[in-house]
Amino acid sequence: MIDYEKDGAAIYRQSFATIRAEADLAALPADVAQVAVRMIHACGMTDLVEDLLWSSNVVADARRALHAGAPILCDVNMVASGVTRKRLPADNEVICTLTDPSVPELARAMGTTRSAAAMELWLPRLEGAVVAVGNAPTSLFRLLELIEAGAPRPAAVIGVPVGFIGAAESKQALAEHPAALEHLVVRGRRGGSAIAAAAINAIASEQE
Amino acid sequence: MIDYEKDGAAIYRQSFATIRAEADLAALPADVAQVAVRMIHACGMTDLVEDLLWSSNVVADARRALHAGAPILCDVNMVASGVTRKRLPADNEVICTLTDPSVPELARAMGTTRSAAAMELWLPRLEGAVVAVGNAPTSLFRLLELIEAGAPRPAAVIGVPVGFIGAAESKQALAEHPAALEHLVVRGRRGGSAIAAAAINAIASEQE
Repeated sequence: MIDYEKDGAAIYRQSFATIRAEADLAALPADVAQVAVRMIHACGMTDLVEDLLWSSNVVADARRALHAGAPILCDVNMVASGVTRKRLPADNEVICTLTDPSVPELARAMGTTRSAAAMELWLPRLEGAVVAVGNAPTSLFRLLELIEAGAPRPAAVIGVPVGFIGAAESKQALAEHPAALEHLVVRGRRGGSAIAAAAINAIASEQE
Repeated sequence: MIDYEKDGAAIYRQSFATIRAEADLAALPADVAQVAVRMIHACGMTDLVEDLLWSSNVVADARRALHAGAPILCDVNMVASGVTRKRLPADNEVICTLTDPSVPELARAMGTTRSAAAMELWLPRLEGAVVAVGNAPTSLFRLLELIEAGAPRPAAVIGVPVGFIGAAESKQALAEHPAALEHLVVRGRRGGSAIAAAAINAIASEQE
């Protein structure tokens, strides 16, 4: 058997050092760079940074919201499952409504996906929340529609749905939306629950 | 607001059609190709196929094990969370031992990571199980050590830990191990919980 590093803290330290040595973070504000490092850590790809789009206050606003006790709204349970509870500054609620029993019927009635229909159940908690969309483009599209229709504004949106149909378009729509939501996006097809959870974990605590 | 596809079945159909049109699956056996398509779907990258390594019977053996009721052993809760329960052929148990209360003390006593220590708790369920490692290289290294020491053999190992320290090495070690475990691997740094769960979901059911 080959020798391998068994010290968890050393593994983290070496991982983040490798990322900082290899990834070109020069164009990023310091707080976005700190989040980007953890997103890269979650996917193993240092070139992820080339596809990042962000608004100026996304990290500061999301962090402030979490410290003030804002909930984290996740599109899928995998994102919620990836949020490290002990990093959260205010024992924040981590909410996923996709598996709520009302969602399948709601989706049928609305003529849309369950991922989009589940956004209706976010409305009572949306104001000032931190949103993390890691899977479904239709969640992100629907969220933007709701905002256009006058829904409360979240503090920040981590928009990293993944895939081949609508993912790139939904993230572009978020980044360019006239509502100017604070956002952090991985443009294109790449994304996913692990990257979304990593962004939340980095925002929740600066500890590496 | 831009128009977007709201029919979940159509989104899946178009996604898988795009992957099959763009990914070069010619070198893969048919059953591995079917699993690869779903792994690509989970990460948005058609070139993932270039990094796949597999043993001849990995999909058939894993599928047979699931039909016979084998448990699915996951290194992290994110993988377990990503397994679609209704795709499982025998209401299979999905097990993650990482957050067992005994693990932190076990890791200290063993001088290793929690991810590696958690493997000890797999031993009573390991024989004939389907293993999915989506996050921690030390889980995969430790599993190989246990097999070398005479632990029961799983039916198949989906080995896709992600990252910068040990990930590539642990997957190479699995693929080249003299124990010749049935394996499916994404070599290099890429991998992750979503890819691991997608592989299990594809093995569990051929429905796209």
